[in-house]
Amino acid sequence: MAAILHRVGIKSSSIDDVYRALTTREGLAGWWTRNTQGEGNRKGGILEFRFGAGGFDMKVTELEPATAVTWEVIEGPEEWVGTRINWKLRQEGDYVIVLFEHLDWKEPIEFMYHCSTKWAIFLMSLKSLVETGKGAPDPDDTKIDNWN
Amino acid sequence: MAAILHRVGIKSSSIDDVYRALTTREGLAGWWTRNTQGEGNRKGGILEFRFGAGGFDMKVTELEPATAVTWEVIEGPEEWVGTRINWKLRQEGDYVIVLFEHLDWKEPIEFMYHCSTKWAIFLMSLKSLVETGKGAPDPDDTKIDNWN
Repeated sequence: MAAILHRVGIKSSSIDDVYRALTTREGLAGWWTRNTQGEGNRKGGILEFRFGAGGFDMKVTELEPATAVTWEVIEGPEEWVGTRINWKLRQEGDYVIVLFEHLDWKEPIEFMYHCSTKWAIFLMSLKSLVETGKGAPDPDDTKIDNWN
Repeated sequence: MAAILHRVGIKSSSIDDVYRALTTREGLAGWWTRNTQGEGNRKGGILEFRFGAGGFDMKVTELEPATAVTWEVIEGPEEWVGTRINWKLRQEGDYVIVLFEHLDWKEPIEFMYHCSTKWAIFLMSLKSLVETGKGAPDPDDTKIDNWN
């Protein structure tokens, strides 16, 4: 099984702000995609993320306030279904450290290379949202290649 | 063994420009670190990349003009030594597609999470260098966390 791993540090003394950006519709719409629906702050809740034509549905499978969030992909591109996305948060000096994992890819296909880079871009958007109040969610996200 | 994978598309009809950015001192200094020395366009050549206090020495182990480059890390942080960095290039419509792999990490330690995100940032710097003539190499690179 292959995995995408990332780390960003968000200059903030409020780990709760970061947690909110991962668990509320408003927060998620502020850095990932404006077209976010559903419920992210309840175990078992379903989140619906849409990007142009396609999108992903995630089930919230773990929630530890200010510490950890896990989603399982239940709908979307075939390669994503069944994969898990893990968020871990901790305060370290002036920074909230975000450890990100997109686990359980069956194969390291080229689409995974794309998603790895794109996740980094969206994590920087999350960082910007919390630090400055302004992220760059889809459709205003930074394009990385011909797959967007 | 764990791996970092990325994909960017550079809007360019000149795959040679991208290859040059990966194999010449000037090119590498334009997107990764201004403090680049050595020889990147000869199999067996050694490249020395320096960032503030530390850095990496790479040996060029594969070179296929306009197609592929491989480096082996021979000096640097312990976790990097012995890892390999692979670049694959191909033209796809208006884009030069860059497939990047940083292979053979012994363990997915937290430093690897950091490097994964940071590689994405530097790949976007490479994209910008070729597309606009201006990259963002160290020390003018985008900072991602408390490790920089």
